[in-house]
Amino acid sequence: TRTLDLAVIAGDGIGPEVVAEGLKVLDAVLAGSDVAVATTPYELGAKRWHATGETLTDEDLAAIAQHEAILLGAIGDPGVPSGVLERGLLLKLRFAFDHYVNLRPSVLYPGVPTPLADPGEVDFVVVREGTEGPYVGNGGAIRVGTAAEVANEVSVNTAFGVERVVRDAFARAQARPRKKLTLVHKHNVLVHAGHLWRRTVEAVSADFPEVTVDYAHVDAATIYLVNDPSRFDVIVTDNLFGDILTDLAAAITGGIGLAASGNVNPDGEFPSMFEPVHGSAPDIAGKGIADPTATVLSVALMLEHLGMTEQAARIQEAVAADIAARIGNETTRSTTEIGDAIAARVAG
Amino acid sequence: TRTLDLAVIAGDGIGPEVVAEGLKVLDAVLAGSDVAVATTPYELGAKRWHATGETLTDEDLAAIAQHEAILLGAIGDPGVPSGVLERGLLLKLRFAFDHYVNLRPSVLYPGVPTPLADPGEVDFVVVREGTEGPYVGNGGAIRVGTAAEVANEVSVNTAFGVERVVRDAFARAQARPRKKLTLVHKHNVLVHAGHLWRRTVEAVSADFPEVTVDYAHVDAATIYLVNDPSRFDVIVTDNLFGDILTDLAAAITGGIGLAASGNVNPDGEFPSMFEPVHGSAPDIAGKGIADPTATVLSVALMLEHLGMTEQAARIQEAVAADIAARIGNETTRSTTEIGDAIAARVAG
Ligand SMILES: CC(C)[C@H](C(=O)O)[C@@H](O)C(=O)O
Ligand SMILES: CC(C)[C@H](C(=O)O)[C@@H](O)C(=O)O
Repeated sequence: TRTLDLAVIAGDGIGPEVVAEGLKVLDAVLAGSDVAVATTPYELGAKRWHATGETLTDEDLAAIAQHEAILLGAIGDPGVPSGVLERGLLLKLRFAFDHYVNLRPSVLYPGVPTPLADPGEVDFVVVREGTEGPYVGNGGAIRVGTAAEVANEVSVNTAFGVERVVRDAFARAQARPRKKLTLVHKHNVLVHAGHLWRRTVEAVSADFPEVTVDYAHVDAATIYLVNDPSRFDVIVTDNLFGDILTDLAAAITGGIGLAASGNVNPDGEFPSMFEPVHGSAPDIAGKGIADPTATVLSVALMLEHLGMTEQAARIQEAVAADIAARIGNETTRSTTEIGDAIAARVAG
Repeated sequence: TRTLDLAVIAGDGIGPEVVAEGLKVLDAVLAGSDVAVATTPYELGAKRWHATGETLTDEDLAAIAQHEAILLGAIGDPGVPSGVLERGLLLKLRFAFDHYVNLRPSVLYPGVPTPLADPGEVDFVVVREGTEGPYVGNGGAIRVGTAAEVANEVSVNTAFGVERVVRDAFARAQARPRKKLTLVHKHNVLVHAGHLWRRTVEAVSADFPEVTVDYAHVDAATIYLVNDPSRFDVIVTDNLFGDILTDLAAAITGGIGLAASGNVNPDGEFPSMFEPVHGSAPDIAGKGIADPTATVLSVALMLEHLGMTEQAARIQEAVAADIAARIGNETTRSTTEIGDAIAARVAG
């Protein structure tokens, strides 16, 4: 038997509620197998910041780095100034652990309500770069608060950083039935970064002759996402465009209550981190009504990443079945009821 | 009688086709009034670049600057490298003429096909900043083409630039029945630029006590646009976020075939420029099947900007009636037929 050694950052708001269900389903899918789960909770987020002023210390980082993977619920509450926990905790984890592949699948499960009248079959994955772009924190401002203020934000893109994520995206496209990769950027305006991305995709494509490549400007990509989302298979894009597109992608596939994500360090040098795309939703926290499905699907992504593909698939099928069972069923279930239902399905 | 002295940049692809219909409707709405129209064509775009290598010379700029307003069709063809005409012509015009208000209304006309199952009433306007952000061209790259390449893009935001566009957006919100303004940014990550935008909106709101203010991160805004677009009244945002959101907004309100825009210099120091949001659509150019409605609506925006609000409203009503007449009518009309139909409605 082996032990899956998880760092758990439940976080704020609905975070702890949905994480509990994610772990419940994880236990259920591993029950009877030779894999045991060990979880270590880390008290990070708004509560800790309010109490101590700390976001993520070097000690926290060093301790979390020892684990095999990280499960994160959600971070933030309205009492913390904007940017403090995002930059000081969430993005710090992504950057410190070199999560250069931010993986966000979008699947429209049968029966899921979507705002689109005629979505077609939607099954694509966004490979969002996670360690560069305008997220690097290389901005600054002068004369703040005066009429002469200048505030700059710098998007940093390197051949090193772009190539590794593009290569990862090609490999994922190669492994999928449709074998199609779409680069999304804005190279007609952001000419320097855009041309680096474009040249890199062109160069790497030589190593993946079976993968069809196309390109969309980010503005046009939003049109395709609502008019013809089934055209997409694998999208590779930068950190900011990926942030925007994946929220839109979540919206058309049933909302962020279902959207899972992985912050992946493919090289295995650091633990990868899995989290629902949604936030801490303070308005519904503590009511037991948050949908834990996105966290459960994030657990499946984690298992896939760790090589337990059979268990990952079982969770995904259980979720699909659970969602199908929701159709026409007007009773709203609580967070734990949904977790229980999915756990029961994976178990048996 | 007075003469409306227009510079016309018909451009490439479907540009000349749709501009012809825009001018036809302009003539029709002014027929019998004391306003005459004088148009001066400027040969700019892909054709000129292929022939001469020029995009926009100082002489072109000086000549165009003499006109009262500019009507632009569309720029670009696949034979021109990405960025050349965008940066060298389209954005150069916007920057040279200080078009700091990029105005993009989104109205879902009754009967227009939308990808949304249940859009509700959609009637908002995006006030996109037009002279700053990552569009300023302050990027650069080193070691291009090597494994050590670094390509940066800089978003520049100034108190001067942000305040004037925010003030314009508040004034527009104040003039609308709902009097609501939504700032869209990403201040939890782009903290310097984001906080400048946020502080500016807060400060300017003191001068517009009747206007309700709210905020959405750009990623969340894309969700609202597909799930609840009627929540928006006036959106104010930066150049890049505005580019992305307005394509999505166009998609949900019937597509870029209907989306109009104005690149406005509110101070009147330079001519403002009106153009459909769509591009040159080389695939359908010359076939006479492009929908000229976006250009016609851009002409209406121009008249509104020039104070001819009655004529602008007449065009908008004619377009609404023309669109309503399309419902259930399967015959596809040609570009000129649509122009003729709208012209007939404004005339009579
Ligand atoms: C909370 C925020 C920093 C984060 C991001 O922008 O990446 C979130 O929107 C996401 O998509 O995970
Ligand atoms: C063509 C391009 C430079 C332009 C922009 O990005 O502003 C276009 O997308 C638009 O929205 O007018």
